[in-house]
Order: sequence, then C-alpha cells, then structure tokens
Amino acid sequence: MDLNAINFEEKFTKFTAHWSPKIIAQMNDYHFKLAKIQGEFVWHTHDETDEVFIVIDGEMRIAFSDGSVHLKKGEMFVVPKGVEHKPIAADECSIMVIEPAGTVNTGDAGGDMTVAEVPWI
Amino acid sequence: MDLNAINFEEKFTKFTAHWSPKIIAQMNDYHFKLAKIQGEFVWHTHDETDEVFIVIDGEMRIAFSDGSVHLKKGEMFVVPKGVEHKPIAADECSIMVIEPAGTVNTGDAGGDMTVAEVPWI
Repeated sequence: MDLNAINFEEKFTKFTAHWSPKIIAQMNDYHFKLAKIQGEFVWHTHDETDEVFIVIDGEMRIAFSDGSVHLKKGEMFVVPKGVEHKPIAADECSIMVIEPAGTVNTGDAGGDMTVAEVPWI
Repeated sequence: MDLNAINFEEKFTKFTAHWSPKIIAQMNDYHFKLAKIQGEFVWHTHDETDEVFIVIDGEMRIAFSDGSVHLKKGEMFVVPKGVEHKPIAADECSIMVIEPAGTVNTGDAGGDMTVAEVPWI
C-alpha cells in the first residue's frame, strides 16, 4: 500500500489547462478529480449521478435554471442528478470534483469541452 | 433546491466533541461527514468499503499494521477496504470523511467509540 498523502497543492502544480480534470484518487467506484477553471463551462446535466464540487482555492459559481450558488475556498455543493447546471469562474479557481468513475464532464451536452479520457496525475 | 454553499468552517463551529462525526452532505448513497479528532481512535476495519480522509485543519496520522501515513491540512488519503487502521491526532484536528451512508465509524471493532446514529448538522 502506498503510504503517501495526496497533497492538493502539489497536484495542482502538475497542470495548467482550464476545464481539464485530472484524477488524483479513487474510492470504490468514485473518482476524485482536480480541475482549474476559468470562464464559462457549458450547460449540461448528469442524469445518472449527483456531482460534488469542492473549492480548494478561489471562487466559482454554479448556475442553475432558477438561480445560482456561489462557492469560495472551503465550501462545497452537491449538484443533484438530473439538474442542469453550468460552472462559471470569473478568475481562475481550483476545484475538486467527486463523482462516479466514467462520468463525462459535459454530461449530456457533449461538444468541444468534453474530456473523453481523464488522466491520473 | 437549496442554493446555499456548505461551508466547512461554519459547520465546525456547530460542535466540539471529539470522534463524533456529523453529516454535512450526501452524494448518491455516500455521506460527507465532519469530525474533530484528538488522541487515539480504535483499530478497526471496514470490510465493505474504502474510506476517504481529508484534513481540513491541523494534522493527523493513520496507522496501519505495516506503517502509517501523516496527513496535514490540504491532504487526503484513501484507506482501502479490508485494511485495518487507526486514526491518531496529537492535537485537535478537523477532518472530513467520505464513505457510504451507514458505514459505522468503528467498523468491525465496536466498543465505546461507536456512533450508532450520525446526525446531520
């Protein structure tokens, strides 16, 4: 067994691209992914699963059809399955996303921001 | 839908007891729990599930039969299912634990530190 801690700050030094999630851990059939985000993502829905956002550094917003939630460092939110949403960050924000392995970042929407194969770092 | 962020620091103001986990969020059938820990927990095993520890503030150690991992603020570790472990914190440490709803804190060990019903805060 690997007895090394997983350090978020150290992992974030390993990539720079926005909206490009990287896997850092697996718990049962769930992946823990880090991402740097800036700008607006696409509206999309995950019909099969809830999705957790945790802000590690910075601030972001998750827009819904009927409002939005603002998240800053040390805050989390659970997007319920089936609820259309759009992550947005005015400035660069570092986040952790937790969801079942194989969950596609753009959900039902597809398009250019889809990451088909999420790498481990 | 509740459009409020879940703020770790604010949630930690709601309780003081050590080794007394509180649920702050649910994703599918998984619970996100906060706990304040200090001293030594009991050796135990979760035969059915991995278990994630994230240190929100302070430092802790997870002891295994063949070594231990040291975790500080901004670090996480996945204890694989079936692996005996013992959380330890010399000074008070604030952590988040992620595991399936219904997972008992003392696993197979039972005893006085078992929390049968974990409350939401």
